[in-house]
Amino acid sequence: MIGDGSVAVDGVAHPASATASDLALAFDDDALGALASSKARAAVVVVGQEEALATCAGGLIVERPRYAMARLLRLFARHPHAEPGIHPTAVVDAGAWLGDNVAIGPLVYVGPGATIGAGTIILSHASIGANASIGSECLMHPGVRIGERVIVGDRCIVHPNACIGADGFSFATPEAGSIESVRESGEITAQNVEIARIDSLGTVIVGSDVEIGASSTIDRSTLGATRIGDGTKIDNLVQIAHNCVVGTKCLIAGHVGLSGSVRLGDRVVLAGGVGIADHLTIGDDAIVMAGSGVGRHVPARSVVGGYPAVPRDQILEQLLYIARLKRMFRDLSDAKNRLAAIERQVAQDSTKP
Amino acid sequence: MIGDGSVAVDGVAHPASATASDLALAFDDDALGALASSKARAAVVVVGQEEALATCAGGLIVERPRYAMARLLRLFARHPHAEPGIHPTAVVDAGAWLGDNVAIGPLVYVGPGATIGAGTIILSHASIGANASIGSECLMHPGVRIGERVIVGDRCIVHPNACIGADGFSFATPEAGSIESVRESGEITAQNVEIARIDSLGTVIVGSDVEIGASSTIDRSTLGATRIGDGTKIDNLVQIAHNCVVGTKCLIAGHVGLSGSVRLGDRVVLAGGVGIADHLTIGDDAIVMAGSGVGRHVPARSVVGGYPAVPRDQILEQLLYIARLKRMFRDLSDAKNRLAAIERQVAQDSTKP
Amino acid sequence: MIGDGSVAVDGVAHPASATASDLALAFDDDALGALASSKARAAVVVVGQEEALATCAGGLIVERPRYAMARLLRLFARHPHAEPGIHPTAVVDAGAWLGDNVAIGPLVYVGPGATIGAGTIILSHASIGANASIGSECLMHPGVRIGERVIVGDRCIVHPNACIGADGFSFATPEAGSIESVRESGEITAQNVEIARIDSLGTVIVGSDVEIGASSTIDRSTLGATRIGDGTKIDNLVQIAHNCVVGTKCLIAGHVGLSGSVRLGDRVVLAGGVGIADHLTIGDDAIVMAGSGVGRHVPARSVVGGYPAVPRDQILEQLLYIARLKRMFRDLSDAKNRLAAIERQVAQDSTKP
Repeated sequence: MIGDGSVAVDGVAHPASATASDLALAFDDDALGALASSKARAAVVVVGQEEALATCAGGLIVERPRYAMARLLRLFARHPHAEPGIHPTAVVDAGAWLGDNVAIGPLVYVGPGATIGAGTIILSHASIGANASIGSECLMHPGVRIGERVIVGDRCIVHPNACIGADGFSFATPEAGSIESVRESGEITAQNVEIARIDSLGTVIVGSDVEIGASSTIDRSTLGATRIGDGTKIDNLVQIAHNCVVGTKCLIAGHVGLSGSVRLGDRVVLAGGVGIADHLTIGDDAIVMAGSGVGRHVPARSVVGGYPAVPRDQILEQLLYIARLKRMFRDLSDAKNRLAAIERQVAQDSTKP
Repeated sequence: MIGDGSVAVDGVAHPASATASDLALAFDDDALGALASSKARAAVVVVGQEEALATCAGGLIVERPRYAMARLLRLFARHPHAEPGIHPTAVVDAGAWLGDNVAIGPLVYVGPGATIGAGTIILSHASIGANASIGSECLMHPGVRIGERVIVGDRCIVHPNACIGADGFSFATPEAGSIESVRESGEITAQNVEIARIDSLGTVIVGSDVEIGASSTIDRSTLGATRIGDGTKIDNLVQIAHNCVVGTKCLIAGHVGLSGSVRLGDRVVLAGGVGIADHLTIGDDAIVMAGSGVGRHVPARSVVGGYPAVPRDQILEQLLYIARLKRMFRDLSDAKNRLAAIERQVAQDSTKP
Repeated sequence: MIGDGSVAVDGVAHPASATASDLALAFDDDALGALASSKARAAVVVVGQEEALATCAGGLIVERPRYAMARLLRLFARHPHAEPGIHPTAVVDAGAWLGDNVAIGPLVYVGPGATIGAGTIILSHASIGANASIGSECLMHPGVRIGERVIVGDRCIVHPNACIGADGFSFATPEAGSIESVRESGEITAQNVEIARIDSLGTVIVGSDVEIGASSTIDRSTLGATRIGDGTKIDNLVQIAHNCVVGTKCLIAGHVGLSGSVRLGDRVVLAGGVGIADHLTIGDDAIVMAGSGVGRHVPARSVVGGYPAVPRDQILEQLLYIARLKRMFRDLSDAKNRLAAIERQVAQDSTKP
C-alpha cells in the first residue's frame, strides 16, 4: 500500500466508471490509461505501475492481479436476495429435515427424507428430490434440480437450471448391434433392432466447495455413484455422464462433455468444448486444450489437444505442417519434374557413344 | 444358473460394495477380482468366468453382460417419489383432461386443453402448455417444458429441464445478406441490415418409448411438425432444430446438434458432440463418430467421422498421414537435396569430354 | 398477385396438408409437385414458377421466399396462452413494479425492486430476480431465469429455461498454476493447489428486439456488464461467458460458446457449435463457419473456419490437400525410388571408362 491508507471505499470498479467511493482496478493498459481522469481516489495496480497512482490519494500494489481481484471482490460480493425461513409458497415435505438458518425460497420443492444443512439458501423454483442431502452453507440458484438420493457437500454453489442426478444414457441390445459390428469389422453388419434401457440405480455424490454452472447436467450412476471431488469448479452447459469420477480441484469449462465412466484425476483442467470418450482416464494436473476430442488415456501432468487429442507439441507441429501443405505439394511437383528431366538426361547420356 | 438358485436378493451391486442380500455383478477384471472377498452370496458373470463363482452360493452365467444388466436392473428400478392425484399446489387448468391414475406433482402447471394419458407421472415444476398432449405411462421429470400443442406418445421419459417446443431459430433478410453473399462469391459483400423473424407455427410430435435427456431442446417446426420417431433415445444437452425428422430407435448422445430440417433415418447412431448442417439426410443404421461435423448427406449403413465428416476408412487414413507429415517433410527435403546433387553430377558428367 | 385476390385464408400450410382455407407455400420442388393436387385455393410461389398456380384460384409471386414466409407467417402467429394480470399462484414481491397490461403466469416469481414493462408476458415458472428490469412487450417463456439486477430491453423473447445472469466462471490461484506454466514453458511445472473464486459483481444488459434460445446461458460480468446488442438473435444451448460484449443484429447458432471477455462486432454470424477463446474480437459482419474453434482475432467482413479457424480459402485449401495426402505419400515414395535408381545409374555411368 502506498499513499493515504484511510480512503474509504464501498465498491470496486473500472477506473472509467468508478465514483469517488470506488476502488479502481487498473490492471491492463486500457484501465491504466483511464486512471488519470478517474473519479476514484484509490486504485490497485500491478507491481511496476506505481506511477499510475500519481493522481490518486492512495493505492495498492499487487503481484498477481487476478488473485488480488478474487480477494478484493469477495469483500463486496453479496448473496442474492433470500429471506430466512421457509417461504409460504414453498412445498417442504413433512419428512424433510432442515438445519438452522436455512432459507427456502418461493415455489421451492423439498421432497420426503431430504436434508438441508445449516445456513443453506435455496432460491425460487429449485427442487430437492426425496432423500437427497444438501450440506451446509450451500447456495442453490433458481430452477436447480437435485435428484433423489443425490448427496451434495458443504459450501457448494449450483447455478440456475443445473441438473444433478438425471438418469444415465445407457442402453443395450439383446444381440450384437451396429456399434459392435463396426468395432469388430469396421462395417455395419447388424442393426439395433431392440434397445433395452439400463436403469440408473445409483446416485451422484458431490464433494464440498464445488461449483456447478447453469444448465449443466451430472447424471447418476448405474450402480454406486457418479462422483465430483472437493473444490472442483464446473462451468455452464457441461455434461458429466453416468459413472464418471471427477477428482478434486478440477476446472471444467463450458460445453465440456464427459462420456460414461470417465475418470479425471485431481486438478485436471478441461478447456471449453472438450469431449472425452467413455472409460478413459485423465491423469492428475493434465490439461486438455479447447475443443479437443480425447480418444485415449491422458497421462498425469501432460497437455493434449486436437481431434483426436495428441500431446501439445505434436498438435502444434501437425498444425504447422498442415499450413505448409500447399508449398509441399508444389515442391513435390517441382521435384517430380526435375526428376523426369534428369531421367531423360541420364538416359540420353547413357546412349551416347 | 449354477449353484443354489434359492438365494434371495433385494438389490444389485458391485462385488466390493455388495451386502449379503445383493446380487453382485462381476463383468470386468476389477469386479471379478473383488468377488472372492465379496459379502454377496450370489453373483453374475460372463460365460467362461464360471470359476469366479466358487465362493458364492449360486450364480448366473450370461452371454451379453450389458443386456443382462438391463434385464436385472429393471427388477430393482423404482420410479421417483410421486403421490397419486393432483398435488394441491399444482395448477391444472379446468379445461385440461387427465387420464386415470395420473400423478401431478407439486408446483406443476397444466394448461387449458392439455391432455395427460393414464398412469403418467408429472414431477414438480414441469409445465405442460395449452393443448399439448402427453400419452400414457410417461414420466416427466422436474422442470420439463412441454410447449403448446406438442404431442408426446406413450411410455416416454423426459429428463429434468428438457424443453420440447421452443420456437425455431429461423430468420430472413429482405435483401440478400452476408451468408448468401459468401455462398455466391466466397466473400462478404452484403450486410444483414434487417432481420425478419420466421415464426414457428408448427409443433413437435414425439413418438412412443422415446427418452429425452436433461436440458435437451427440441424446437417446433415452421409449419407441420418436428418429429421424433418411436423408441429413439436422446441424451443430455442435445439440440434438435425446427423441421427435423428423426426416425425410430435412433441413439443421439450428449451435446449433439441437428440444424434445421435434418432428417435421420431409423436406428441412426450419433456419438457425442456431433453437429449436422441443415437439410441433410442421414440414412438408416448410419453411425456418425464422436465430435464430427457432417456437411453432406450420409448414406444408409455407413460410418462417417471427422470435420468435415468423411467415411471412417478415409478419416482413419487421413489421421495416419497427418501424423506422418513431419517425416514426409524430412523425406521431401532429403529428396530435394539428393536431386540437386544428382543434377550437379549429371551436369558435370555431360560436360566431360 | 395474380388471379382471384378475394380468396380468404386463415392459415398457411404445405400444399400436401393444406385445406381449402389455407394459403399453400410452394417454394421447393417437393411443394410445387404437391400443389396440383392440393386442396388449397391460393398459393405462393417464387418468380418463374407462376405456371404452378394453374390449379389455384389465385396466388402470390415472390422474389425472396424466406422473407415472404417471414411476412406471411407473422399474420397467423399467435402468442402462447396467457391470461392478463397476475395469476393467483404467482409470487410478485410488493416492491416490484409492473407496467400496464402485464401478464404474470402461474407459479412465476418476481423479486423485490424488479420492474416489468408494459405489455410484457411472463409465462409459468419464470423467475425475475431482485432489481431486475424487463422492458415492454417482452415474452418470457416458462422456466426462464433472469438474475438480480439484469436489464432486458423491449420486445425481447427469451425461450424456456434460458438463464441470464448466472455468475461467471472465473478463478485465480495465489501462485502461478498449471495453465500459466504451460503458457510460459509449454509444460506443466506447477499445480493449482488453491483455487480462489473471482466473484461476479457485475450484471448483464440485453438490448431490445433480442431473442435468446432455450437453455442458453449468459453470465454476468465481473464488474460492469456483459452486453448483448439490439436485434441480436441467439439460438438454443449457447453459452456467453462473463464480460462478453456482443454487438447488434448478430446471429448466434446452437451450441456456440463464447469464452470470457469476447467481443463481437455488429451483424456477426456464428454458425452452430463455434467456440471462441477468451478476450478475442470478431469484427463487424464476420462469419465463423460451423464447428470452428477461433483462437485469434477475426477481422471485419472476413469468413473463417476450421480448428483453429483460418480464412475460408485457407481451410478449404487445407481440406483439399489433406484429402490428397495418400496420393502424395505414394508420389513421394515413387520419386524416392526413381531417385535411387537414377543415383545408381549415374554412379555407374561415372565409373565407366
